[in-house]
Amino acid sequence: MIETTNKHDGAPQGPRPLAEALEMTRALIQQTLDGVDPALTDIARHLGKSSGKHIRAALLLSAATDARGLIEPDAVTAAAALEILHLATLVHDDVIDDAPTRRGLPSIQSQFGKKTAVISGDYLFCLCFSMIAGMSHQYPEQISLFARAISSLCIGELNQHKHNRDSELSVMGYMRIIAGKTAALFFLALYAGGLLGGADEKQRRLLGRIGFAIGMLFQLADDCLDYESTSDTLKKSVKHDLAEGVITLPLIFAMRQNPALKTIAARSRLSAGEIRDVAEAVVQKGGLSQARTIAERYYHRACKLLDQLDEPVRQMQIRQLLDQIHNRRH
Amino acid sequence: MIETTNKHDGAPQGPRPLAEALEMTRALIQQTLDGVDPALTDIARHLGKSSGKHIRAALLLSAATDARGLIEPDAVTAAAALEILHLATLVHDDVIDDAPTRRGLPSIQSQFGKKTAVISGDYLFCLCFSMIAGMSHQYPEQISLFARAISSLCIGELNQHKHNRDSELSVMGYMRIIAGKTAALFFLALYAGGLLGGADEKQRRLLGRIGFAIGMLFQLADDCLDYESTSDTLKKSVKHDLAEGVITLPLIFAMRQNPALKTIAARSRLSAGEIRDVAEAVVQKGGLSQARTIAERYYHRACKLLDQLDEPVRQMQIRQLLDQIHNRRH
Repeated sequence: MIETTNKHDGAPQGPRPLAEALEMTRALIQQTLDGVDPALTDIARHLGKSSGKHIRAALLLSAATDARGLIEPDAVTAAAALEILHLATLVHDDVIDDAPTRRGLPSIQSQFGKKTAVISGDYLFCLCFSMIAGMSHQYPEQISLFARAISSLCIGELNQHKHNRDSELSVMGYMRIIAGKTAALFFLALYAGGLLGGADEKQRRLLGRIGFAIGMLFQLADDCLDYESTSDTLKKSVKHDLAEGVITLPLIFAMRQNPALKTIAARSRLSAGEIRDVAEAVVQKGGLSQARTIAERYYHRACKLLDQLDEPVRQMQIRQLLDQIHNRRH
Repeated sequence: MIETTNKHDGAPQGPRPLAEALEMTRALIQQTLDGVDPALTDIARHLGKSSGKHIRAALLLSAATDARGLIEPDAVTAAAALEILHLATLVHDDVIDDAPTRRGLPSIQSQFGKKTAVISGDYLFCLCFSMIAGMSHQYPEQISLFARAISSLCIGELNQHKHNRDSELSVMGYMRIIAGKTAALFFLALYAGGLLGGADEKQRRLLGRIGFAIGMLFQLADDCLDYESTSDTLKKSVKHDLAEGVITLPLIFAMRQNPALKTIAARSRLSAGEIRDVAEAVVQKGGLSQARTIAERYYHRACKLLDQLDEPVRQMQIRQLLDQIHNRRH
């Protein structure tokens, strides 16, 4: 049985500034993973080791910052739940992609087997819903928001999978895929944060739109980095997207310039050399810079929307995270 | 995005007797599967075709029956959500077991591939939570109940997997596994039904205990049937439990009588002939009849607990379902 709590042993329960709230979120994630059923202890420990940068949690907390610059404990719970949800999707992604590693460590699937990976992912989904359910008396909308974001994510993943090795995938088709598989969760982070931080309906919608733009920027930047960097600089990408049959924007643009690339993109089992050749062609044909231009547009859209936010601390904090994502080069 | 509703086009919204409520539940499941994102349409259609007997929904609705013998629309939503949750676990089970068929049809995994199966299962989990979230204003406990039941289920599955081919698995260990993987959902069905049917706390707990006993009976009967029947009489069991390395109570009892069976049980890749030999030995050594005796105990426990229910219609309806499960011979 799951036992979740948003209380920290000995820690006072009042509202906190961002840095402290983020620290509490990290502690709550760890505490939640530590508190799982003994059957899952090894897996939870493994997941705890490879924990990421918690960018989604930081965004949720920033959006939840009130006029005093403080964040309520409920937002810490929601932020931790969001990161655990993200972890669940990563575990299932590894099953789907048969990925050998994740964040530089062996994936759950390669370490513990497929069965354990599927079930652990399901368990993490439950953990997330349990945490949200613990606060649903006050915020009954949260569950619907989370459920909707996860379903978008599933649909995005399904659509991506459908278009694997589809050399005719359009720019719009690609945008729809990443809107579901990535931006929906960033939308959730900022919208839910706004709800928990007492933002009114109009500001919440605005926050959601900012989140969406940040999510699109985040995914586009990720896809560009995949063509720019080698496995040494980007831990995640020991395997290139293309090796998985995933066609992203830089390649779509490059294929427009050089249709010969389509034949290679449609093939399965590309050699490392072939992938390197495609990556070089994508850079030479301007696919990478075109994709970077689109990413920039989302950055500017997010900036413009941010200007309309009426809460200065919230605004400043989100802007810092946005710039961090924008300047990411590995 | 998920759109769920507990309203039926043109259907009046008042409380209904069991048969009608069950019909509405079937319609709502179908309607929910029909209303999924286009990316999932084929899969939903496939799932709709192989829909089962809805025993869990029937139990929930029976427990939700009030003094007038009527069931509120919210219970129909919960019953449909419970069946969709069950469907989600079946889809993931097929991934875990690499099952070629389910209920006589190709499994989602064999028909649409592993990726689609993992994601579709996740999507169905979301659908379930979305449906429950739609009613959580009035019943905020429901989400926690569902999340807790699913996590029990995951833990049960993980424990079962850990003890695959474990010829030293004890009777207690086995009981713990099936308590999680099966009885927890039956507990949920009756407890949640009681909540929605206005049963007081004491009666709800009693209903939960009845559900647990029925779930244990259901799983034990299933495990016995696996040793009694061939693939012709039990659609589900095209593959025998033992072929999957799953050790159940009849075999545990038989291994106590004939330790030589342990060597075979611990092996992977048993031939059809070897499985037949083990099945015969399990019958001859009395393992099957001993397991049937334990199943009978749960039947009698459920009957005894049922006598303590203070609502006659609810009691009568649950008893009918209990007898149906008890008399199942295929």
